[in-house]
Amino acid sequence: MNTGELTDLGQQLRVDSVRAAAAAGSGHPTSSMSAADLMAVLLAHHFRYDFDRPAHPGNDRFVLSKGHASPLLYSAYKAAGAVDDEELLTFRKLGSRLEGHPTPQRLPWVETATGSLGQGLPVGVGIALAGKRLDRTGYRVWVLCGDSELAEGSVWEAAEHAGYEHLDNLTVIVDVNRLGQRGPTRHGHDLDAYARRFQAFDWHTVEVDGHDVDAIDRAYGEAASTKGQPTAILARTLKGKGVEAVQDREGLHGKPLPEAEDAIAELGGPREVRVQVQEPPAARMLHAVQTGDYELPKWDKGEEVATRNAFGEALAALGTGRGDIVALDGEVGDSTRAEFFAKEHPDRYFECYIAEQQMVASAVGLAARGWVPYAATFAAFLTRAHDFIRMASVSGSGVNLVGSHAGVAIGEDGPSQMGLEDLAMMRAVHGSTVLYPCDANQTARLVGAMAGLEGIRYLRTSRGESKVIYDPDETFPVGGSKVLRSSDRDRLTLVAAGVTVHEALSAADALEREGIAARVIDLYSVKPVDRATLRRAAEETGCLMTVEDHHPEGGIGDAVLDAFTDGRPVPRLVRLGVRSMPGSASPKEQLHAAGIDAESIAAAGRLLVEEAVVP
Amino acid sequence: MNTGELTDLGQQLRVDSVRAAAAAGSGHPTSSMSAADLMAVLLAHHFRYDFDRPAHPGNDRFVLSKGHASPLLYSAYKAAGAVDDEELLTFRKLGSRLEGHPTPQRLPWVETATGSLGQGLPVGVGIALAGKRLDRTGYRVWVLCGDSELAEGSVWEAAEHAGYEHLDNLTVIVDVNRLGQRGPTRHGHDLDAYARRFQAFDWHTVEVDGHDVDAIDRAYGEAASTKGQPTAILARTLKGKGVEAVQDREGLHGKPLPEAEDAIAELGGPREVRVQVQEPPAARMLHAVQTGDYELPKWDKGEEVATRNAFGEALAALGTGRGDIVALDGEVGDSTRAEFFAKEHPDRYFECYIAEQQMVASAVGLAARGWVPYAATFAAFLTRAHDFIRMASVSGSGVNLVGSHAGVAIGEDGPSQMGLEDLAMMRAVHGSTVLYPCDANQTARLVGAMAGLEGIRYLRTSRGESKVIYDPDETFPVGGSKVLRSSDRDRLTLVAAGVTVHEALSAADALEREGIAARVIDLYSVKPVDRATLRRAAEETGCLMTVEDHHPEGGIGDAVLDAFTDGRPVPRLVRLGVRSMPGSASPKEQLHAAGIDAESIAAAGRLLVEEAVVP
Repeated sequence: MNTGELTDLGQQLRVDSVRAAAAAGSGHPTSSMSAADLMAVLLAHHFRYDFDRPAHPGNDRFVLSKGHASPLLYSAYKAAGAVDDEELLTFRKLGSRLEGHPTPQRLPWVETATGSLGQGLPVGVGIALAGKRLDRTGYRVWVLCGDSELAEGSVWEAAEHAGYEHLDNLTVIVDVNRLGQRGPTRHGHDLDAYARRFQAFDWHTVEVDGHDVDAIDRAYGEAASTKGQPTAILARTLKGKGVEAVQDREGLHGKPLPEAEDAIAELGGPREVRVQVQEPPAARMLHAVQTGDYELPKWDKGEEVATRNAFGEALAALGTGRGDIVALDGEVGDSTRAEFFAKEHPDRYFECYIAEQQMVASAVGLAARGWVPYAATFAAFLTRAHDFIRMASVSGSGVNLVGSHAGVAIGEDGPSQMGLEDLAMMRAVHGSTVLYPCDANQTARLVGAMAGLEGIRYLRTSRGESKVIYDPDETFPVGGSKVLRSSDRDRLTLVAAGVTVHEALSAADALEREGIAARVIDLYSVKPVDRATLRRAAEETGCLMTVEDHHPEGGIGDAVLDAFTDGRPVPRLVRLGVRSMPGSASPKEQLHAAGIDAESIAAAGRLLVEEAVVP
Repeated sequence: MNTGELTDLGQQLRVDSVRAAAAAGSGHPTSSMSAADLMAVLLAHHFRYDFDRPAHPGNDRFVLSKGHASPLLYSAYKAAGAVDDEELLTFRKLGSRLEGHPTPQRLPWVETATGSLGQGLPVGVGIALAGKRLDRTGYRVWVLCGDSELAEGSVWEAAEHAGYEHLDNLTVIVDVNRLGQRGPTRHGHDLDAYARRFQAFDWHTVEVDGHDVDAIDRAYGEAASTKGQPTAILARTLKGKGVEAVQDREGLHGKPLPEAEDAIAELGGPREVRVQVQEPPAARMLHAVQTGDYELPKWDKGEEVATRNAFGEALAALGTGRGDIVALDGEVGDSTRAEFFAKEHPDRYFECYIAEQQMVASAVGLAARGWVPYAATFAAFLTRAHDFIRMASVSGSGVNLVGSHAGVAIGEDGPSQMGLEDLAMMRAVHGSTVLYPCDANQTARLVGAMAGLEGIRYLRTSRGESKVIYDPDETFPVGGSKVLRSSDRDRLTLVAAGVTVHEALSAADALEREGIAARVIDLYSVKPVDRATLRRAAEETGCLMTVEDHHPEGGIGDAVLDAFTDGRPVPRLVRLGVRSMPGSASPKEQLHAAGIDAESIAAAGRLLVEEAVVP
């Protein structure tokens, strides 16, 4: 396309953005208009993509980090012939694929859900890592960011990661329109301010007038030909560009244009420009799912093994068997034991340093390219990536997260290092799976099972050693549980998982000595929960006590309730959890102080069977 | 102190760090040893502090961002005479104030709990903001960071904030010992790499040999005299400095020294150096708690008002009455309505741009200096700051968090903008208070009540308008609830909060027309929960149905269970919540699609009273 045609395409994208928002009665046309020329030139001259084959391994990848500019994205899809005008005008309506913010669950050309700012570049880095280190099919990753979102620290985690990894297949285009939601950004139109920051993180930068299509064209060419560094294109633009009533004005973020018909006329009216997007080069994926025979590790009953060790060994074995397994570390691989995988499969191991948001974002990017990631850090530090986990679930992304050092059982390090809210966080993620093993054999089997699940799956591991209580050939279906003690004399049921399983077994022994038979259930699958077994236990024993190394809110106690919320009778219940703020102490002292050790369980059990109120 | 004395003090700090970790059998002596000279010079020559009066308004403030180097901190306290040698050797033991990672809950000289890396500088920025903009007593904030933690994006949010705000009262000292937990950092001893990054964010930088006490002394002097910019001192150090067996070696993070006695001898043996820390200058706090008469806003019954608007108006009024109230915004003040406060009290309003971690960290820093912060953004985006909220609770920090745009009720914007896991996140925070009002009068009263609570308190507000159902003079105690419909014929209880209160009232009307009397409880205090009222309702109506605009996990349904976990009988239960992934649609369509509108509630209610299983 020549200059005039590109300009014309930019105007069409503006007109269609205005039309879509007007039809919806909401949306972000002004944020779309600033980036319209940037999008037009990308689509017409640089983006290589087969809209009929979004899974084509040679396709470039585009991420709209400023997800609220969805009218622009959908207008581009229309220009490329991927959606028609009728669908464009369903924008933001019930049942439409064209949501307020784009998601891959609805649209095959979207790589990752955006709308929480500062996430597009981090996920783009993950895709670029896949392209550079694994897929090697030569695709380029283009990320369109807003300027406001550069205030998010996650952007600089991503910048650091991309610069360090020399991701020259990655280009970020920053639409510097100087206006955020509520007013001017910190740096306004000072492109140098942004350039200095990206350069400091070892990026190549290009500053450009974001409404000069020829300059944009040259900038993209420069980005594509830059070797050894990612490129940031800093484009000076005007929000609402092209319509005098809104251009470069405050107070117009996220609103349809006041006079849409006049605005469309001012933009030259609707057009029918159709872009022939470049075909991607022929390519094929390198990864093979099954790469060799493998066996998950096994341990003998009675051995003392930390579940974090079992995780590391199982993951390494899984990686031997499956070439699509990758692992990511937040600079604690020696603690989480993810380093066991690194030793066997260094080519598929991604060191993310202490940057949990980027670790999860990289996992999401890798998963978008078909890889099966396991990202591990301390359970407590996964809270750092909560918003990324939430958005990964909106994407429908399939990632495995592993949180080690769960609960007070870690001992002396104290509360900053204790995962005490991770179960609540992970259970509340839509469509998640939450697993919490108590022994090494169980851990290994669950690590293997996770790879085949959908959505966000979480494995919680423990720092200290615990006794192997399961036979190496035992199976552990997701959604199941294990009844470890049972008799027809049972007067209560103890429901535990992880470290508290061992405490519950000891408590059951103690109660048995007093003539109180207690059933013990290992609830290794916290979500989904084994409703049938819990309900049977409730019917047969009349009362349930949950015991968890976690705050009382949102964890195992609440998970168990899930079995009893269909209107049928509910058993009597007691929940033991960590109710006080721990300090430093030995693991044994910690469990006792929190009231979740065998002695505390037995004491509460006595009260429960006597139908006394348990404080 | 002269060069020899300073060097001697540094060696003493090393020796005492080694001794403390040896006595504990755990801890991080090598990470303490690298920074010992940096700490010695700070304590002896630059830090102005009265250990007997930690609340002295003129005191400098020190934050150990690398909280695992706690042996160094406690050794410094000993050198300053604040703790004795006997206490030093209680390090990491049950009941000791000297925890694995320092917390202000135990030690009066600690400003904020650390141990989750990358949080000390952000909180230090908050304290420096208080010093610069509010307290104005001339204190300096010193933050000691590790090099590994500079990979955290939160550090660069903080750097951006501090540079932009010209916080020349802030100095960060980076202990560049080149080794992280599991191996070398990205940039090793390349001080320039870090300097470039800080400079790009408009900081002054000084590079120094971190074991040359005179050079360190000059660097601190340069930092203190630099105007208009914060200063980053980048200090080249060796991990485990001074003991050949561990110095600059990998694999020795977080472990006591293998031969402690030999190491102590190599360091020259124990010493009895005592530092006379400089007195702070005379100063007094500027803020007065009560600054004028004020009245929280009131609305007439029947008005249609969004609770987010009521929040904004109430906060502005509260700020008029109390001079210690401050507000923080994540660049969405026009949406959360925090901007109402900004208009009345611009001097106490902190624009944090789109950087939720820094917003919460600033709130924690301001609270540490005695201010009462309200930090507001979309409920969904508070997940970005989850780890900071978690650590704030470890600090015992008193901050108010406000999350707007709760749930599917926001409508067209779609799931990325919907707070659907915020209740789970906030309930699982130790000692938190969680409030969720359904009308404007209730909102205003709760905004006022929050200011007087302890710990983390959370207010959830809604985007759309809702009818005012409470009298302007009604009171809403925290931990209470309101019974909105009640009769002795009630056959079930509907428990709702926020938008679902209005749906539950409509459902109760519909059921009443069919002859089914339903009690309706407004559970505006989600945590603590009103056990007595819920228990009475259970006893009188036999069954409970919770209805929430939130995922089913961790929210109101789970909160209600809290009333029934003391071993006494539990009512039959049904929980309605958002179980599917929403798309774009109108608020009304969203509530219907999620099965939490009046029609869905009535349908489930019919099944419940018929003792049928509710799917």
